[in-house]
Amino acid sequence: MSEDNAQTPSEPVQLADALTSFDALWSPRVVTRVNDYDVRVAKVQGEHVWHVHEDTDEFFLVLDGSLDIALREEGGERSVTLGRGAVFVVPRGTWHRPRSAEGASIMMFEPSGTLSVGDAHDEIPDHVDATTGHTLSL
Amino acid sequence: MSEDNAQTPSEPVQLADALTSFDALWSPRVVTRVNDYDVRVAKVQGEHVWHVHEDTDEFFLVLDGSLDIALREEGGERSVTLGRGAVFVVPRGTWHRPRSAEGASIMMFEPSGTLSVGDAHDEIPDHVDATTGHTLSL
Repeated sequence: MSEDNAQTPSEPVQLADALTSFDALWSPRVVTRVNDYDVRVAKVQGEHVWHVHEDTDEFFLVLDGSLDIALREEGGERSVTLGRGAVFVVPRGTWHRPRSAEGASIMMFEPSGTLSVGDAHDEIPDHVDATTGHTLSL
Repeated sequence: MSEDNAQTPSEPVQLADALTSFDALWSPRVVTRVNDYDVRVAKVQGEHVWHVHEDTDEFFLVLDGSLDIALREEGGERSVTLGRGAVFVVPRGTWHRPRSAEGASIMMFEPSGTLSVGDAHDEIPDHVDATTGHTLSL
């Protein structure tokens, strides 16, 4: 599942360098590994797809820009907004859809092998990459 | 072990707000949880203590300032320097000692219950807090 994932680098990685090494939107890169978790970065703009990770929480840190995450919860739908330097965890089993009008750079923690579009999802638009994370080429 | 750890907040948390909510050095606060992992922030200045986590890797992101991590490896001792926006993972089983001359704010990702001074350590100086992470009070 994670055939092209990166290993743990032996030197520090500047997230700014990681982010300038690729252009693709909604296409996460694996920066490093922590036990069996990935640290991934992504550039995003526009809408991702409604999806759910049944078995894992998903951590977001906004490095630059602003990210909205729509959430379908028991009480209905709501949206949280993460500015630069904000963190949020989408609980397992919660349908969610990230979105960024202005664009954002984000960092994520999630178990290696976690698919970017979850275990179930709406129809995947062409601009969304269904991936377990690509290797970073610095 | 993690009796005073935070749960997963239902709203985004600004790391800057988390960092202004306490002053203690080398005394991590749990910002949120991802499955059975903690996301912790800490303010640091001066030297931590040589220690080792036998069973887990430890992830560092420097939010502000600069952090040196001395490492005892097979080939000898070396030190890596993380500026603002740099990430590094100390592999399990590697003795290490964080240090910051100018001071730094850092974010960490590690299994809940992980002790800040590891499973084995040199004598703990008074300025280092041996903790599994304190609850954040925002």
